[in-house]
Amino acid sequence: MSRFLSKEAMKLAPYTPGEQPKDAQYVKLNTNESPFPPSPKLMKAMTRAEELKLNLYSDPTCGRLNEAIARHYELKPENVISGNGSDEILAFAVRAFCGEGKGVAYADITYGFYQAQTALFGLEAKRIPLREDFSLNVDDYMDFPGTIVIANPNAPTGMAVPRADIQRLLEADPDRVVIVDEAYVDFGAESCVPMIYRYDNLLVVQTMSKSRQLAGGRVGYALGSAELIAALNRVKYSFNPYNVNRLSIIAGAAAVEDEAYFRQCCSAIAGNRAWLTGELEARGFAVLPSCANFVFAKSDKIDGGALYRQLKENGILVRWFDADRIRDYVRITVGSMEQLTELVDALDRLLEEV
Amino acid sequence: MSRFLSKEAMKLAPYTPGEQPKDAQYVKLNTNESPFPPSPKLMKAMTRAEELKLNLYSDPTCGRLNEAIARHYELKPENVISGNGSDEILAFAVRAFCGEGKGVAYADITYGFYQAQTALFGLEAKRIPLREDFSLNVDDYMDFPGTIVIANPNAPTGMAVPRADIQRLLEADPDRVVIVDEAYVDFGAESCVPMIYRYDNLLVVQTMSKSRQLAGGRVGYALGSAELIAALNRVKYSFNPYNVNRLSIIAGAAAVEDEAYFRQCCSAIAGNRAWLTGELEARGFAVLPSCANFVFAKSDKIDGGALYRQLKENGILVRWFDADRIRDYVRITVGSMEQLTELVDALDRLLEEV
Repeated sequence: MSRFLSKEAMKLAPYTPGEQPKDAQYVKLNTNESPFPPSPKLMKAMTRAEELKLNLYSDPTCGRLNEAIARHYELKPENVISGNGSDEILAFAVRAFCGEGKGVAYADITYGFYQAQTALFGLEAKRIPLREDFSLNVDDYMDFPGTIVIANPNAPTGMAVPRADIQRLLEADPDRVVIVDEAYVDFGAESCVPMIYRYDNLLVVQTMSKSRQLAGGRVGYALGSAELIAALNRVKYSFNPYNVNRLSIIAGAAAVEDEAYFRQCCSAIAGNRAWLTGELEARGFAVLPSCANFVFAKSDKIDGGALYRQLKENGILVRWFDADRIRDYVRITVGSMEQLTELVDALDRLLEEV
Repeated sequence: MSRFLSKEAMKLAPYTPGEQPKDAQYVKLNTNESPFPPSPKLMKAMTRAEELKLNLYSDPTCGRLNEAIARHYELKPENVISGNGSDEILAFAVRAFCGEGKGVAYADITYGFYQAQTALFGLEAKRIPLREDFSLNVDDYMDFPGTIVIANPNAPTGMAVPRADIQRLLEADPDRVVIVDEAYVDFGAESCVPMIYRYDNLLVVQTMSKSRQLAGGRVGYALGSAELIAALNRVKYSFNPYNVNRLSIIAGAAAVEDEAYFRQCCSAIAGNRAWLTGELEARGFAVLPSCANFVFAKSDKIDGGALYRQLKENGILVRWFDADRIRDYVRITVGSMEQLTELVDALDRLLEEV
C-alpha cells in the first residue's frame, strides 16, 4: 500500500464495475443498460444552442430537472435532489444518515456498491442474509437501529419486495431512515413513491440509467420528505455543488417528460424478458423471478464462471459474481431481441459441447 | 436540525456557490466562467451519433480523456485521473491522503470549498494566515505534518506562488502530499506540472471550467505520480465509478487538443484583465496583482458589500465574501470587453452618487 494513503483510505473496498473491453465488439449484456437510444424528445432538447453554453456552470439547484421530476411523480421540487447518477445520491444519503453509532444494514446478496460506500465513510454494516430462495424477509430488519438500504427490485437477483413490507419497516420505527433503491423499479416492481408524503423517513432513489436510456448522461435522483432532501443537500454542497452536467439537466428533464417513449421501452423490455426466461428454462436453466431489466439464471449443465468465460469467448458479455451463494449464476441484461437471439444461439452451441 | 442527520452530517460546513439568479438577465461576473463559447473542435466532436449512445455508460476509466490530457502534458495516462469537475477530484484527494491523525493545512483566505470538504471527512484543519499583503509564505507550512493544499494562483485574491517555493515544500518532507490546485494557472501563474516526475508527493489539480470553456461539462482532473493517482482511484471506485459523463469525455479530450483556441482565449483574458485593472485603478480602486481570470479589488469610496449590492441593482453580478480580512473587496470575473465595459460604465454611475 502507498505510504501516502490515510488509514481510512486503506480500509476502502472499491467497487468493480462491469467490464468495458476495448479489444473487440461484444454483445454487451453485462451492465444493465437500455438497448434503446435516448428519447427523440431528449435528442431535440439537446440543441447546438444549449451546447454552445457549456462555458457556463450548470444550475447547482438543478431547478429545471427537479421540477420536471417533481411534476412527473406529483411531488414538489423540495422533495427531489438530482445527482451525477444514483451512486452519487446513495453516497450523499449514507453520509447524511449514517456515522458513528448509526450503522447501516442491507442484504448479503445485493448491489455491491453499498459495501464500497459503507467503507468510504468507515461505517459499521450489518449484512442480513436473504432467505434460501433469495427473497427478502423484512422481519429480519425490524429491530435494526440504523439506516436500512433495500434494493427493490434487488440486484443481481431481480426479485422484488412488496410495498406493504417496506411500509411495515417504515412504521416500525419512524426515526429510522429506510432507503429504497428503485434503480430497476420501472420494469415491474411496486414503487414506494406513493408513500413519500405519508412517511418522512422514506427515501426513494431512482436513476435514468436503466429505464430512461441515459446511463451515459449520469442522472440519478432521490425522492423523499423535504427534511430528508435537505439533509442530502447538506452533503452535496460539501462535496460538489455543481454535480449535474448542464446538458444532463436538460436531457434528464426531457427524458422524464417523454412518458410515451418510456412506457414503450419498458414494455419492450418486459416482453423480451419473458421471451428470454422461456428460452433459458427450455434449456435447463433455473431463472429467478425477475422484475428488472436483467435475469439471474443458473444452468444445470455448466457452472457460472465457465458459462461467463465461454460466452465471452463467443463475443457475448454477461456478468458473473465470484461470491458465495451466487457463484452458480450469471446475470444477463435484457437487451434487444437481436442481442438476445445471439445469446440464445451461442448458448445452443455451448451446451451442445458440454 | 433534522432528527435523521448523523453526527458527522451535523458538523458539515456546506459551500455556498455564486448566485445564479433566474429573476433577471445579469452581466454575470461572479463565478469565473469563460466568456467564450467552447472550442469549435469540441462542438464538432460532440456529434449526434455520440449523443445517440447516451443509453450506454461512460467508460469508467475515462480512457480517451485521460490519454488526451496525458499527451498534452507529456505524461502517461497512469499519471491522470478525471472527475466530475475539480471539486470532486479535490474530495477524492482529501479522502485518499487525510484522516485520523493526518490533517490538512491551507490558507486562511482561499477557496472556501477546502473547508467544506475538510468537514465532510471530519478532518482537523489548520488555517494558516496569509501575510498582510495576501501573499503566501511557504515557510509557514514547512513543519506541518499533514497534507498541504495550495491554490495557485489563489482564489479569491488571484495572487500566485512561485514554483520554487512549492518545490521547497515538496523537498522538505517527501512523505507529505502537497496538493496544488491550479484551477486558474493558465491565466498567468507557473504550473507545477513539470515537477511531477521529480516529486512523487506532488498532486496538481486542474479544471476545464475556467480556461477551457467547459464549466457546464464538468471536467476536472489531477496529475501526479502513478502512486498518488492510484490512491485517488481507490476513492473514486468507492464513490462513483462512472463519474464522468459520456459526452464530457469526448468534449474534454477535444478541448485539451485544441491548443490554438485555448491560447487565443487565455490571451484575450489576460488583455481584458490588464484593461480592467487599469480602469479600476483610475477610479481609485486597489487591485491585487492577479494571475487569474478575475481581479480582487477594493474601492476607496464604497465598501465591498455596498458595491456588490449596488452593482446587482444595476444588473451586474460580482462576488462578495462577508468574511474577515476581505470584507472590503469584491471579486470580479474578467469577462468579455462588452461585459467589462458595462461594468465600468455602471461603476462610473455609482461612484458619482457616492
